[in-house]
Amino acid sequence: MGIIVGYYSTKFGELWDKSLFDLVEEAINGVIKQTQIEKKQIDVIFFANMLAGVLENNLHSASKIAEIIGLNIPVFRVEAACASGGVAFHLAENYIANHQNKTALVIGAEKMTDYSPEQVTAALSAAASGEEQEAGLTFPGLYALIAQVYLNKYHYNEENLAYVSFKNHYHGTLNEKAHFQKKLTLEQILKSPYVAYPLKVLDSSPISDGAAALIITNNQQIIKKTKHQVKIIASEVATDTISLKERKFLDRLLATSLAAEKAFKKSKIKKKDIQVAEIHDCFSIAELLAMEDLGFWPKGRAGTKIKELSTMIGKGNNLFVNTSGGLKAAGHPVGATGVKQIGEIYLQLTKQAGKRQVKKAKYGLAHNVGGSGGTAVVTILGG
Amino acid sequence: MGIIVGYYSTKFGELWDKSLFDLVEEAINGVIKQTQIEKKQIDVIFFANMLAGVLENNLHSASKIAEIIGLNIPVFRVEAACASGGVAFHLAENYIANHQNKTALVIGAEKMTDYSPEQVTAALSAAASGEEQEAGLTFPGLYALIAQVYLNKYHYNEENLAYVSFKNHYHGTLNEKAHFQKKLTLEQILKSPYVAYPLKVLDSSPISDGAAALIITNNQQIIKKTKHQVKIIASEVATDTISLKERKFLDRLLATSLAAEKAFKKSKIKKKDIQVAEIHDCFSIAELLAMEDLGFWPKGRAGTKIKELSTMIGKGNNLFVNTSGGLKAAGHPVGATGVKQIGEIYLQLTKQAGKRQVKKAKYGLAHNVGGSGGTAVVTILGG
Repeated sequence: MGIIVGYYSTKFGELWDKSLFDLVEEAINGVIKQTQIEKKQIDVIFFANMLAGVLENNLHSASKIAEIIGLNIPVFRVEAACASGGVAFHLAENYIANHQNKTALVIGAEKMTDYSPEQVTAALSAAASGEEQEAGLTFPGLYALIAQVYLNKYHYNEENLAYVSFKNHYHGTLNEKAHFQKKLTLEQILKSPYVAYPLKVLDSSPISDGAAALIITNNQQIIKKTKHQVKIIASEVATDTISLKERKFLDRLLATSLAAEKAFKKSKIKKKDIQVAEIHDCFSIAELLAMEDLGFWPKGRAGTKIKELSTMIGKGNNLFVNTSGGLKAAGHPVGATGVKQIGEIYLQLTKQAGKRQVKKAKYGLAHNVGGSGGTAVVTILGG
Repeated sequence: MGIIVGYYSTKFGELWDKSLFDLVEEAINGVIKQTQIEKKQIDVIFFANMLAGVLENNLHSASKIAEIIGLNIPVFRVEAACASGGVAFHLAENYIANHQNKTALVIGAEKMTDYSPEQVTAALSAAASGEEQEAGLTFPGLYALIAQVYLNKYHYNEENLAYVSFKNHYHGTLNEKAHFQKKLTLEQILKSPYVAYPLKVLDSSPISDGAAALIITNNQQIIKKTKHQVKIIASEVATDTISLKERKFLDRLLATSLAAEKAFKKSKIKKKDIQVAEIHDCFSIAELLAMEDLGFWPKGRAGTKIKELSTMIGKGNNLFVNTSGGLKAAGHPVGATGVKQIGEIYLQLTKQAGKRQVKKAKYGLAHNVGGSGGTAVVTILGG
């Protein structure tokens, strides 16, 4: 499998002075500079973006990126809602694994804040099923249904959810590229207004702009030359029915369990070997489910475990989760998210994570979800 | 490389009683039945679609297709404007080449006729550059600029263009799934109204609905069991700047030349070994350029050569082009087109092309273009 040799992300946030392709260009130039390879050494590009078609009638981004980079190489745009970034990485990894001495650039980008929250919420609901859209169910609504099932079944309440945001906002203060770099108290989170009961504003990831880029290679010359390297040891994708009404259970995401099972089998490491994980916390409930579905915590226990703060920097000691701030505090420019998650693991494993650096991390995991669990990607790095 | 073992397409045309996913479902069931494999033998799905996000706020189709097929396998949606189908095939081929005993389903689909021509034209312009869109340039407009350069430079006129539609509409009469199955006279074509000078309605491919599906495999058990098989011997992609103003020349599409050069090199066959080709004739001018850019005819000669009708069934004898009717007569449901092109070559090489069957075809080529030449995919089958 390939080696990650470089990562760059723009600031995530409300970047009103930058267009989608301004962000893409900054990410490309950033990762090229950081890696010190030449543009012409890139053989293929995978680009993750969800909403540019819907929001700004902007498709065929492959050829627009070819124009930016000035090369005639294959460029592929992939879309899997909020899992677009993880899927782009997965396909890039597969693509170069099929060739010798190849280098892939993976870019994820999204431009969301030029539009009203209503426009963006409607656009995001494109990832839901047709029936769910017609019924007026938005993503906060879908995850709220999941949260109700989970809280009722395992006898938790909104406070158990709030600990996710509490931890991730603290981590955000350690990441200078995070959308929000402000610590929140549990009380602030619990007093924030409801978006869809029991989920509140401060249970929800924000609407953000941003781009992130990674370079993966199996080109021996580049591997020799670059300084910071991390092995890809598994990248697996699973899908599930998108309609909640078609699912047998709502207290877990089947696609996450299936992707994780395949990824751990392939990587030959155990769950306890992972010291750092970026997990898809689009809503606080999503991180609780994922910690269980990935196998880190037993089913139904996440509500209790999160209160122990064992996954928080400065508090825990084994497994640190969402050190970037997660989607909640680092921001969620949809197409960029899956790339940023893998990038954060790369930074941690190469000791480039600055103030949020975790000690002795050998293995890390990134978990990226599309829609209300229709697609899941699990990536394991390290070794 | 993989083997194609099955192909199915829906009727192309104005299918007002079918939704996008009705068409997808018909294509999946059709190819499964035709191949007589079981659904659970499919390991991965690649789905090509351009416009569902823009036209009907329908994204994350991966998980919607997982729901239709009832499997939790990886499903990937790719988009490269009108080259989406060719790109999906290319990525599927690469994906299975990286694994043993794997089977990929490639589906392309588009639902266009539920919207007004103005809405569809605006949506299609998402594939053009931002500046071109702002200037009001639609795809007929962009190809009209290219046609003006070509006709002026090589001293041709609108009659030279009309022969493309004349031939392809005749081929359409031999294809029961074609959008148009009506022979046209040169006079009818030349008298049709202008869309963008010098291109007329009957120089232009229609707005169509449709879906097409292919099965590619390297699973020896499936290869043994299936009846009609064709080898993939090359699948190559190249890109170019999307903005016409950034190009050095407008009388050729560089991406096509580059993709063809790579594909012929990889396939180790010569241009004269190809007996059947499906070529991206979104407008009549596009087929003339492509015949030159692919290397079948010398630069500047296509305007003369097309009048000899050497690529028309019943007239020619070496190389038959767009036997399906091409985009012009078979129709152009954007995401389905690239899959249908490869499917047509598969039908020809396995002697399943019915009334339009070409004799003694050993090798075939499919050529799929995105936008005004920003992406090109060249696929060579046979041997």
